[in-house]
Amino acid sequence: MKHYLSLEDLPDFDQAITQAIALKKEPRAQTHLGRAKTLGLLFFNNSLRTRLSTQKAAKNLGMEVMIMNFSEEGWQLEFENGAVMDQGKAEHVKEAAGVLSQYCDIIGIRAFAGLKDYEEDRQEKVLHYFAKYASVPVVNLESALGHPLQALADAMTITEQAGANEVLHSQRNENEAWEPRPKTKVVLSWAPHPRALPHAVANSFVQAMKKMEVHFVISHPEGYELDPEITAGVPIETDQNKALEGAHFVYVKNWSSFKDYGQVRSQDPSWTLSSQKLKNAKCMHCLPVRRNVVIADSVLDGPNSLVLEQANNRTYAAQWVLGRLLEDNH
Amino acid sequence: MKHYLSLEDLPDFDQAITQAIALKKEPRAQTHLGRAKTLGLLFFNNSLRTRLSTQKAAKNLGMEVMIMNFSEEGWQLEFENGAVMDQGKAEHVKEAAGVLSQYCDIIGIRAFAGLKDYEEDRQEKVLHYFAKYASVPVVNLESALGHPLQALADAMTITEQAGANEVLHSQRNENEAWEPRPKTKVVLSWAPHPRALPHAVANSFVQAMKKMEVHFVISHPEGYELDPEITAGVPIETDQNKALEGAHFVYVKNWSSFKDYGQVRSQDPSWTLSSQKLKNAKCMHCLPVRRNVVIADSVLDGPNSLVLEQANNRTYAAQWVLGRLLEDNH
Amino acid sequence: MKHYLSLEDLPDFDQAITQAIALKKEPRAQTHLGRAKTLGLLFFNNSLRTRLSTQKAAKNLGMEVMIMNFSEEGWQLEFENGAVMDQGKAEHVKEAAGVLSQYCDIIGIRAFAGLKDYEEDRQEKVLHYFAKYASVPVVNLESALGHPLQALADAMTITEQAGANEVLHSQRNENEAWEPRPKTKVVLSWAPHPRALPHAVANSFVQAMKKMEVHFVISHPEGYELDPEITAGVPIETDQNKALEGAHFVYVKNWSSFKDYGQVRSQDPSWTLSSQKLKNAKCMHCLPVRRNVVIADSVLDGPNSLVLEQANNRTYAAQWVLGRLLEDNH
Repeated sequence: MKHYLSLEDLPDFDQAITQAIALKKEPRAQTHLGRAKTLGLLFFNNSLRTRLSTQKAAKNLGMEVMIMNFSEEGWQLEFENGAVMDQGKAEHVKEAAGVLSQYCDIIGIRAFAGLKDYEEDRQEKVLHYFAKYASVPVVNLESALGHPLQALADAMTITEQAGANEVLHSQRNENEAWEPRPKTKVVLSWAPHPRALPHAVANSFVQAMKKMEVHFVISHPEGYELDPEITAGVPIETDQNKALEGAHFVYVKNWSSFKDYGQVRSQDPSWTLSSQKLKNAKCMHCLPVRRNVVIADSVLDGPNSLVLEQANNRTYAAQWVLGRLLEDNH
Repeated sequence: MKHYLSLEDLPDFDQAITQAIALKKEPRAQTHLGRAKTLGLLFFNNSLRTRLSTQKAAKNLGMEVMIMNFSEEGWQLEFENGAVMDQGKAEHVKEAAGVLSQYCDIIGIRAFAGLKDYEEDRQEKVLHYFAKYASVPVVNLESALGHPLQALADAMTITEQAGANEVLHSQRNENEAWEPRPKTKVVLSWAPHPRALPHAVANSFVQAMKKMEVHFVISHPEGYELDPEITAGVPIETDQNKALEGAHFVYVKNWSSFKDYGQVRSQDPSWTLSSQKLKNAKCMHCLPVRRNVVIADSVLDGPNSLVLEQANNRTYAAQWVLGRLLEDNH
Repeated sequence: MKHYLSLEDLPDFDQAITQAIALKKEPRAQTHLGRAKTLGLLFFNNSLRTRLSTQKAAKNLGMEVMIMNFSEEGWQLEFENGAVMDQGKAEHVKEAAGVLSQYCDIIGIRAFAGLKDYEEDRQEKVLHYFAKYASVPVVNLESALGHPLQALADAMTITEQAGANEVLHSQRNENEAWEPRPKTKVVLSWAPHPRALPHAVANSFVQAMKKMEVHFVISHPEGYELDPEITAGVPIETDQNKALEGAHFVYVKNWSSFKDYGQVRSQDPSWTLSSQKLKNAKCMHCLPVRRNVVIADSVLDGPNSLVLEQANNRTYAAQWVLGRLLEDNH
């Protein structure tokens, strides 16, 4: 693995999940991997879980960590090739990436979607130009289009809950009696939110579910279709109640319109996830979550919420990714 | 000790002081306690001494430290139970505390008084809701009503200067000849300040002095009474010169009015502590201090100032608290 | 060495360069020096390279690092002696420096020139008052008038490229045949820039070049003379093409007018360094650099650019300085 920019960079999805889960039993068993190595974390946007879990992961590996809130502490970056830099931007990504590659063994980058211009966002300039010009591995800490560390933690959580031999193709127990698969139903359900949110978490979750042995359905109001290239092949159900029937896992998430890019077209409160709707399914969310808007208190405070398990798995997802990058790039 | 939210959480006040003083001789003797443990420091307000001394304390214990300037780097927090989070606040303290408890073994929190509404401030929501919803110990790095790490450092400083057997009940040397006690006079003296300051430092200092074998007097202009529940039993003298007579230690501190909550009712420069007033007493202040407004240059630059000793003791007060929390909660 | 405030603090310039270069081969060979020692880094201005390379240097030495963005995270500082602090400034440098000296074994400080008032800037109050009131060594991370860590890294870079026996007086090989010296031509060439920049990098580079066995020339448009006390004895050539003739190293840098202090008097694009002008010389810049304003893409993307080597040498320049301060002040 050269970089971890999206789930597609994983050399083996099932192996990543099972190995990351195994790390939880002995988090400090790998301190040799990170000895005298440095992780640089560049934040162009706010962060709590990613900031702390990725630090924790690096420390578990014995790495040093250097953090920059890039926009406030560094210089405004130029990304265009050939730009005449006579305006506000003081440093080109070519230099920034080149310099950071000399101080860091791995660089993590968080840069959200602007949600103004899809053509701009889809280029994920901050992430991809750093990956292009850095001479060390780059890790996506949430970019315009994806949040693959979150998706790996989410897939770990489903695997732990449902059992690896239920949801991972490679882990299927060949000795068991034949039965039709998949038995596990996962629903990604849109929820209302007062602000326009990016598609990154939803996109990466869809990509993860397509790799698992699950019956996966996406549910959202009409007009809230995600990027059709990403959801290709996944059933979409605009009747939320119908979608939730028989679900084992309900991943709740708001996103703004993709078609009317970055617009909030609905705040329909009937889509808020309640205990009545959830029934016996497990509820997942990447956090932060707006209570009683996205998900009802009764769900989050009840026994079927997995949101803390997901957040905890962030550490081990990051640790697996960092450890693998250290192994593959020394 | 489960949390360190106020001085009342100390299992044994005198023991904490004597053990914290003992740490100064061999600060790195306890690195086994913090091995593979992580301290999270959440700042909702500015900090110099607390930020650095608490980090230093953690490093002395062999702990990792992760710091967040919460308001700028994280998400705005909701504290109300049952809130419909459709406004500016993106994360509920329930999730924040739950998540942080998975990444950190101890959480330190600084959140000042707002000084607008006493009923609001007295709830110390940030501190107490984190303590309520966290599954790990929480340390008060200065809350609306108290600054118990400062008070512990202050009590250490007085003990070092006066001698443990003079000011700690438990350390009294039983073999010495009988004489009336206490021999040590400590005055907490209000001083003017251009801005409205919280009561936290003064409150915690009062609570500490009530636990020591000292003759303790509070002095302030009329109308500057602190919370009477906290000062109950302590003599109050509105004539500063009279209060200072025979003092061994003068703790100078501004606070805004408690009665007219958060208001600045006086900036009377005659209350500024000068060398003439101090005489041979030792001068204490928690810092930062406004020179020639709160305390005169001649005092701060002279041999009777203990302000740097107090700041130094912050490291060992924090180290004792963190070490004890690690011992009691593993 | 007590502090590292300017190049003049180096006990032996040539030795510093050769030892710093030697560190690159085995960066972690000195971890005993920094064991249980703490570096405090105070940023009053933005920083990327200095922030990260100095951290990295400290980690290479086994030191702990504590970082403060002082203006945002701490208290506004007062520097005047005798000030009555009844306005915006909450803490005096006397206390700040005294307190930090108790938490840190070395203090690094970045505080840029204001470029409004030369008499104010030349006092370099933040740096010099910290050095005056601190009881531990202070390192200049770029002050109003100098950037000696950058200049040390620059001198290392020239030495590595040209060979120590070519450019360091002390390293001249006595056995070689006599030939006239110096053979190495270094040009400091002004370049246009949309904003008013300080003189610190240029000043320190001039001071470094005066210590080396090089033919050193400064080139800038008329009216852009640097402080004549610093450039005394150095030839100045206002015809850039003439200055660049036969150059081996061209250090490109913008600075604002010194005479019309802090003013931008020219943005003449003919001074932008192009490949045509550079010819076979090596191009140097401290970064961040505005592409196609200060230096053309073709130079920065070509084989003659040393800017990344310079940035890499920042780590080892800082490591040498910190290591020496630890050795000399324990």
